Amino acid sequence: MYKKENLHSRNNRSGTNFHDKKSPHETIERELDGLRVIPLGGLGEVGRNMMVLEWEESALIIDVGLNFPMEKTPGVDYIIPNISYLEKSKKKIMGVVLTHGHYDHIGALPYILDKIGNPPLFGSALTLGITQKRQEEFPLQPKLKLNEIKEGDKIELGPFSVEFFHQNHNVPDGHGIVVETPVGNVVHTSDFKFDSTPTNAPPTNFERLQEIAKKGVLFLMSDSTGAEAEGRSLSEKLIAENLEKIFAKAEGRIIAATFASLINRVQDIITISEKYGRKVVVEGYGMKTNLEIASNLNLIKTKKGTLIPAEKASDYPDNKLTILSTGAQGEGNAALMRILSKQHRFFQLKKGDSVVLSSSVIPGNERAVQNLKDDIMRQGAEIFHSQMMDIHAKGHAQQEELREMIQIMKPRFFMPIHGQYSMMASHAALAEREGIPKKNIALIDNGFIVTLNPDKINISKKPVPVAPVMVDGSGIGDVGGVVLHDRMDLAESGIFVVIAVIDKKTRKIKNSPDIISRGFVYLRESQVLLTEVRKKVMEIISKGGKQKKAVKDIKPEIKTKIEGFLYSKTGRRPMVLPVVIEI
Amino acid sequence: MYKKENLHSRNNRSGTNFHDKKSPHETIERELDGLRVIPLGGLGEVGRNMMVLEWEESALIIDVGLNFPMEKTPGVDYIIPNISYLEKSKKKIMGVVLTHGHYDHIGALPYILDKIGNPPLFGSALTLGITQKRQEEFPLQPKLKLNEIKEGDKIELGPFSVEFFHQNHNVPDGHGIVVETPVGNVVHTSDFKFDSTPTNAPPTNFERLQEIAKKGVLFLMSDSTGAEAEGRSLSEKLIAENLEKIFAKAEGRIIAATFASLINRVQDIITISEKYGRKVVVEGYGMKTNLEIASNLNLIKTKKGTLIPAEKASDYPDNKLTILSTGAQGEGNAALMRILSKQHRFFQLKKGDSVVLSSSVIPGNERAVQNLKDDIMRQGAEIFHSQMMDIHAKGHAQQEELREMIQIMKPRFFMPIHGQYSMMASHAALAEREGIPKKNIALIDNGFIVTLNPDKINISKKPVPVAPVMVDGSGIGDVGGVVLHDRMDLAESGIFVVIAVIDKKTRKIKNSPDIISRGFVYLRESQVLLTEVRKKVMEIISKGGKQKKAVKDIKPEIKTKIEGFLYSKTGRRPMVLPVVIEI
Repeated sequence: MYKKENLHSRNNRSGTNFHDKKSPHETIERELDGLRVIPLGGLGEVGRNMMVLEWEESALIIDVGLNFPMEKTPGVDYIIPNISYLEKSKKKIMGVVLTHGHYDHIGALPYILDKIGNPPLFGSALTLGITQKRQEEFPLQPKLKLNEIKEGDKIELGPFSVEFFHQNHNVPDGHGIVVETPVGNVVHTSDFKFDSTPTNAPPTNFERLQEIAKKGVLFLMSDSTGAEAEGRSLSEKLIAENLEKIFAKAEGRIIAATFASLINRVQDIITISEKYGRKVVVEGYGMKTNLEIASNLNLIKTKKGTLIPAEKASDYPDNKLTILSTGAQGEGNAALMRILSKQHRFFQLKKGDSVVLSSSVIPGNERAVQNLKDDIMRQGAEIFHSQMMDIHAKGHAQQEELREMIQIMKPRFFMPIHGQYSMMASHAALAEREGIPKKNIALIDNGFIVTLNPDKINISKKPVPVAPVMVDGSGIGDVGGVVLHDRMDLAESGIFVVIAVIDKKTRKIKNSPDIISRGFVYLRESQVLLTEVRKKVMEIISKGGKQKKAVKDIKPEIKTKIEGFLYSKTGRRPMVLPVVIEI
Repeated sequence: MYKKENLHSRNNRSGTNFHDKKSPHETIERELDGLRVIPLGGLGEVGRNMMVLEWEESALIIDVGLNFPMEKTPGVDYIIPNISYLEKSKKKIMGVVLTHGHYDHIGALPYILDKIGNPPLFGSALTLGITQKRQEEFPLQPKLKLNEIKEGDKIELGPFSVEFFHQNHNVPDGHGIVVETPVGNVVHTSDFKFDSTPTNAPPTNFERLQEIAKKGVLFLMSDSTGAEAEGRSLSEKLIAENLEKIFAKAEGRIIAATFASLINRVQDIITISEKYGRKVVVEGYGMKTNLEIASNLNLIKTKKGTLIPAEKASDYPDNKLTILSTGAQGEGNAALMRILSKQHRFFQLKKGDSVVLSSSVIPGNERAVQNLKDDIMRQGAEIFHSQMMDIHAKGHAQQEELREMIQIMKPRFFMPIHGQYSMMASHAALAEREGIPKKNIALIDNGFIVTLNPDKINISKKPVPVAPVMVDGSGIGDVGGVVLHDRMDLAESGIFVVIAVIDKKTRKIKNSPDIISRGFVYLRESQVLLTEVRKKVMEIISKGGKQKKAVKDIKPEIKTKIEGFLYSKTGRRPMVLPVVIEI
């Protein structure tokens, strides 16, 4: 039923199942039958990736990622995909395929998995290792059904036959996906770049890609994150070479900050440290955890004795020490910030230190990173960041590589995925230049249903629900528009609570009203203002009492009048909350 | 007295005036006497520029700018310089020199001027025009003492003799300053770029700069905003040429968004529109105001009939129409946003429109601008922005120009001003490469006092007060750490007020406690939680009553216990405010 509900909003209103009833609309219906591809996240945004493939009564999910909060969602921890479309039909879900171990691909699992019936998960050893480790932070969740796959494995999930192919990115053990479906083969590139000299991984296997292409590709879904950047992405080897230049020159400690998730970068920093005889102290919980998982799988290689605990660092001279830390984005609580602000238990920044920020700046973090740079320079340390030299390679294919992917796969239909709309639009324009007709390209937002047949692509007129679901503390989805709007209002000018107790019988106020306020003005320095407010409230209540007004009518009057009064006196609009208690 | 208070914190403690007493410290004192230069804003930040020059009992101020709020100052309108250093000695102020009409140079005047005794202002016609217009928004402020200056004018202000020299920037009628002082000549570049083909202004007059240099420059203070960028800034002519390419191709309306303050860009867009037979509708209050001031001074030239009101736009075909608007940064209330979101009275975006964003992205606005781009593309309009082509020139000299400025002026002492610390540090390094000894370069933050003598530069050990002053509504400086901290806490998880009325005699609670909450959870969907909270509060009060606890001891107990309870249930930490009223 649901497929029609979403595909044909017009027919849907009748609530009829045309297949059963053999209605006159049947022909139209049949034409639109086919493989359904529904992006629940990751389109028009960077992060929160989740894709659904449906054939009749079977569904396959690719990735279940999260996104990080935006300015307009204060207090929110994460944003996850909206799965109301799936909740009705969770029995159909044959499995969840995880392409790689980044949180924007696996991070929403603990919030979503039990709601979709805890289906089996398929992914590489590292991807599942990171997934499992994260799950342990959620003890109430059901046990994961983990199924480890390897390059070349083929898994049968109902009508879907899924194969994995190695893709280079900035975390090892990642894969693209080929799904054989009844209408043809679907390729999902996941996040990728072409790299002939990667770290800790074989280079891109173009032969394998050719083999996949040879079987015919009906539909290609390809990563758009780098689609606005000309040329090719940098190889990780080049990054390592540039990093090494810093190590070759540095005469003091090296503090190298990157993302915990950039496991290949972490490997590079360790390898170069070993080459220059430096011991490595690893700081930051995420960094330590990922290192442990990857090491156990032999996906990070460290010589015995390279890694030392922080408390042993003072045993070594500065030029024999690397501190590998989180915090390259200026995140408030990360190890690097604690080192800078003298809050760290073992390390303080000093002259002679070289600080390497080896990560790109996430949009929205520009000011924090600028302040970080300023602070490092003020303290007399040297700084190296990716605007100064190529010490960060983005993990995403750029225009030349995207062009090659399309030329190899030669898909009949194409959909740009993973990226802001402007990136997807660039990718769509590129695909058109590579010869895919515009009508065969699905440039869409989350929630629209793409229906595929061997010779036809259709896009639903309306999307399924995709409104972002907020995670705040242990609440999932219970923070929405009203609560967030209130938070933004509170941040703007604070709160002002007026509490008055009135006598039920006499309708007169008892005592002077209490006032409690936060984030508005210093109350101690505003006694005159408060006295005036109290006077006004007493007047309103006294007048209301005489007119025998109900409390429910007095409260809005207090609110409006006090709001107006405070604005006239201060130019600010705190949220005024009147409390009138009858005793 | 004050000069010693700030220069020698050690001597200062005695409170002695050594000159009068001929104390043994006199020699040391004398050595440190000289011209004092005190940056009160604009160092280590972009904006809020304000510089003080002092000689004995006379002071001269250069610029009084504001800055825009940061993430950590929610609800704040502007950030202005801290002038507590000046307030004690306002009689010394001979005048305020304004270099150009941007708000980061003049915008704090209405908040500061009466506090420093409303001294005379000196600036060009346009600078004073914008200053005066802004002042009209503050009717309670005293009348400005405006003194118009022209290139080459010399004004005598006590021991200071001030000359103005034309500088190119992205607003016309801006000037650099040369101040003859008893110790030598001081040059303040203000914001500048070298441009041989500027809009609406003569090119940089290198002869004049050479003349200034010939008289000897003791101290150069130079704009660092562009010091991290290699090469030279783009000429405005090139920008105009690139803009024209868009106009030459566009078949529909052109919606050109830029800053209202970029008056030269506004001129370019009008001139090119005229060339292509397009009428121009000007949208946005700031845009209209600046256009009016500049037109009245003949600093913007428009042909008769070019500017039309919005309501007449429908009389013209799309390809004969330019809409010139604010909103290139994705500002929520700007004209462009209203056009995009179908909130505008006259215009809606449509297919065929070309939207030109002709401004750089201010750090912190990256996400807003990305969303703006996405929205424009989603609606099928074409977009042109400065990452795609050179349609925005920054108004600031880059490394090659900064090098030339130093080579021309050949100052004995040098101070990088205007910019983040990393920019100033780049500028200082550049100056050193150009031959200025490191010990002659003052790479400092706001508030440090530079004391200059013909052969000596000294920097105070401690800064004068420079903590940012917040403007919020009509309050200046009354919003500080505690209030802002509360606002950020409120934004994070909201507020939770518990109100209990207890009987003074029996110490028992009357009724069930009232609960009022905002920004925490949907109260309607959280009845179970609220019932539990009420129960817990009643228990605490009942127990407290039996133990005869005072209300002041019961309140913190309610706060702690309810905070803990709410965190255990929701993982959130709303601000819990207990109100206990005795009746």
